[in-house]
Amino acid sequence: MISDLKGTFSQISNNNKRSAIREILKLTQNPEIISFAGGLPAPESFPVDALDKIVSDMLCEEGAAVLQYDATEGVTELRELLLKKYQDEGIQCSLDNMIITTGSQQGLDLVGKIFVNQGDVVICGLPSYLGGIGAFQAYGATMAGVPMDEQGMSAELLETKLEELKQQGIKPKFIYVIPDFQNPTGITMPESRRLEIIALAHKYDVLIVEDCPYREVRFEGKPQRMMYELDNNDHVITLGTFSKIFAPGFRIGWVLGPKDVNEKIVIAKQSADLCTPTFVQKIAIGYMKSGLFETNLQKTIDLYHQRRDVMLAEMDKHMPDCVKWTRPEGGMFLFITLPEHMDALDLFHKAIEKKVAFVTGNVFYCDGSGTNTIRLNFSYVNNEKAIAGIQRLADIIKAEMLVGETC
Amino acid sequence: MISDLKGTFSQISNNNKRSAIREILKLTQNPEIISFAGGLPAPESFPVDALDKIVSDMLCEEGAAVLQYDATEGVTELRELLLKKYQDEGIQCSLDNMIITTGSQQGLDLVGKIFVNQGDVVICGLPSYLGGIGAFQAYGATMAGVPMDEQGMSAELLETKLEELKQQGIKPKFIYVIPDFQNPTGITMPESRRLEIIALAHKYDVLIVEDCPYREVRFEGKPQRMMYELDNNDHVITLGTFSKIFAPGFRIGWVLGPKDVNEKIVIAKQSADLCTPTFVQKIAIGYMKSGLFETNLQKTIDLYHQRRDVMLAEMDKHMPDCVKWTRPEGGMFLFITLPEHMDALDLFHKAIEKKVAFVTGNVFYCDGSGTNTIRLNFSYVNNEKAIAGIQRLADIIKAEMLVGETC
Repeated sequence: MISDLKGTFSQISNNNKRSAIREILKLTQNPEIISFAGGLPAPESFPVDALDKIVSDMLCEEGAAVLQYDATEGVTELRELLLKKYQDEGIQCSLDNMIITTGSQQGLDLVGKIFVNQGDVVICGLPSYLGGIGAFQAYGATMAGVPMDEQGMSAELLETKLEELKQQGIKPKFIYVIPDFQNPTGITMPESRRLEIIALAHKYDVLIVEDCPYREVRFEGKPQRMMYELDNNDHVITLGTFSKIFAPGFRIGWVLGPKDVNEKIVIAKQSADLCTPTFVQKIAIGYMKSGLFETNLQKTIDLYHQRRDVMLAEMDKHMPDCVKWTRPEGGMFLFITLPEHMDALDLFHKAIEKKVAFVTGNVFYCDGSGTNTIRLNFSYVNNEKAIAGIQRLADIIKAEMLVGETC
Repeated sequence: MISDLKGTFSQISNNNKRSAIREILKLTQNPEIISFAGGLPAPESFPVDALDKIVSDMLCEEGAAVLQYDATEGVTELRELLLKKYQDEGIQCSLDNMIITTGSQQGLDLVGKIFVNQGDVVICGLPSYLGGIGAFQAYGATMAGVPMDEQGMSAELLETKLEELKQQGIKPKFIYVIPDFQNPTGITMPESRRLEIIALAHKYDVLIVEDCPYREVRFEGKPQRMMYELDNNDHVITLGTFSKIFAPGFRIGWVLGPKDVNEKIVIAKQSADLCTPTFVQKIAIGYMKSGLFETNLQKTIDLYHQRRDVMLAEMDKHMPDCVKWTRPEGGMFLFITLPEHMDALDLFHKAIEKKVAFVTGNVFYCDGSGTNTIRLNFSYVNNEKAIAGIQRLADIIKAEMLVGETC
């Protein structure tokens, strides 16, 4: 080995930390553990049976073309099918605005890559999706957290933050938001809040990165218009994915963004992986054209809806009064706030002993706060396990209550 | 749009240039043009017929697991199968040394990402694969070119370069080599040259990145041991891929590297795309286990061998004496050196008019030299077209000869 390998690694490599969740998930792999920790879609939601015929037809009709390289921007027909879904919602967009990525994680990575220099500021919610924060931090971003309320990122505190940065002569590279059923909180921004944040982006001349992995998985309430649509002024870059509405094992995501931004993303993607696998993109085309997409999505929504209901019912039944949690209208996660004196990491180790697992909420807080919070996933675990798991978790929390503690 | 989008892009984005080949390829898309320009495997080499059953069996036996996220390092069974191939060659390696990537282009990108800071020096052959140079330059690499002779990168000139850099207090991050049937020249390094370069890497305390996309596609001559094996001292990071020996549309590559390097690559890959698509990795497992891999590889080798022979025979027949070219023992490319007064770009435009296309060699020279060179691909075009194309090309070159020019 060379004499100073450690000193040979780049600044980016040194910025890039192993995901805290990854370490937590390793502890939860014992099959006896009921785990609410992961962020996995339910395998029951995957259209396994439909794929055999779709692949078979595709190979028969298209032959070798499905095994060849394709354009860096993605297979044109898939881009058109995705655009059509947005256009049907009334959104103005064309091929220049649509790039296929290798999962929306690659979208996050490429957005970081084309915008962030070492030391640049990126604004995110407190808390926010760890994979987004990590991707931006890898390129040297200093994350500036803005607290959330029950409507998502606080517009008032966002303005305070933007003004504070402006006073210091700092212009953030972008504001990172997950407007629908946010990971980790499950909170959805109403249109009014989206408009407030867009107005601030205009006022302070800043881009918005809108991450939408869960948007289509809505159980109830009114779908909210995307910030991309509400802005309609090239301030918003939206990331989408099939991972939660088709299958994560295909790694198909997309960027719906301004033409000038997408041009840079394509160049960055070309050196990142040349193109997303043609084979899976072609399967996605067959799947969308078969009409099964909508049927299976409804099945997925129904499944997660029912799992969320069971989870909330059990929590209502067993959790002590001083524990609070969100009631998401969709998505895959809910978020618990424990009494302030409780440390979720301490609780995590006790929970593992009792064979139940979760992710400590603090990993989603770029400032390390949120030590009394917990993220629970409700999409993966079946009802029987969920019921047993929530009971175990409630028992553990109750045992942590202070003598005579009331809320 | 924000007021200064251009000023908002990162240093990396500004480093990252649109591929020159990409622009050239756009000009060659007219179906009447016989194009030796691309770097595409022959679609006839793809095992289309075998895949229907492999996918069907896979869905039946594994069900939803093939559609779920999998480990960032890659699906364990695929890593084991690849390791076994190397172990069968006598190479020492274990799971810690093997990571699946989304094509070997991702391997190049991640190597750049974990090692290169703005201004760092990376050494490469003059000429070298553009996608490698581009990936490293994106992270700010200053490429230092070392001329090649008929045995690949010159060891003597490499030492001169390393010594020159040392005098300036500069340690390059790594030496980038493509030892087998190099892109663009088709040249293979004999073992003696590999050992000389490894000795220099040891002497100057520098890593080697060994890019092996074509190694298995050998028509004749003795397979050369990989530099990874010859070194056996953690100085070499090897990149492999299925793109030329199975199907590029799966985007499956791998890194065979020292444990300490691979640990950093996994972390970087996690924020890049979480994991390579599970679905295509599982297909690759089924394909390798079916035994079809070896049969189809031999078919591919035979096809390219025969295409190379036709191409060389036509060139021998039609090219004027003062034109020189390589005679590759494998791979997909050969490289032409024209008389010095000829400009390949000028020739390219004339060739497009005559409906034949190639890539100008200078795009592979990090110092912009090689303006009288041409890369020809021989894997994609069928014999009939190759014969017509080479005749057209020879005619164009002959028309450029100076009056009374002899060689």
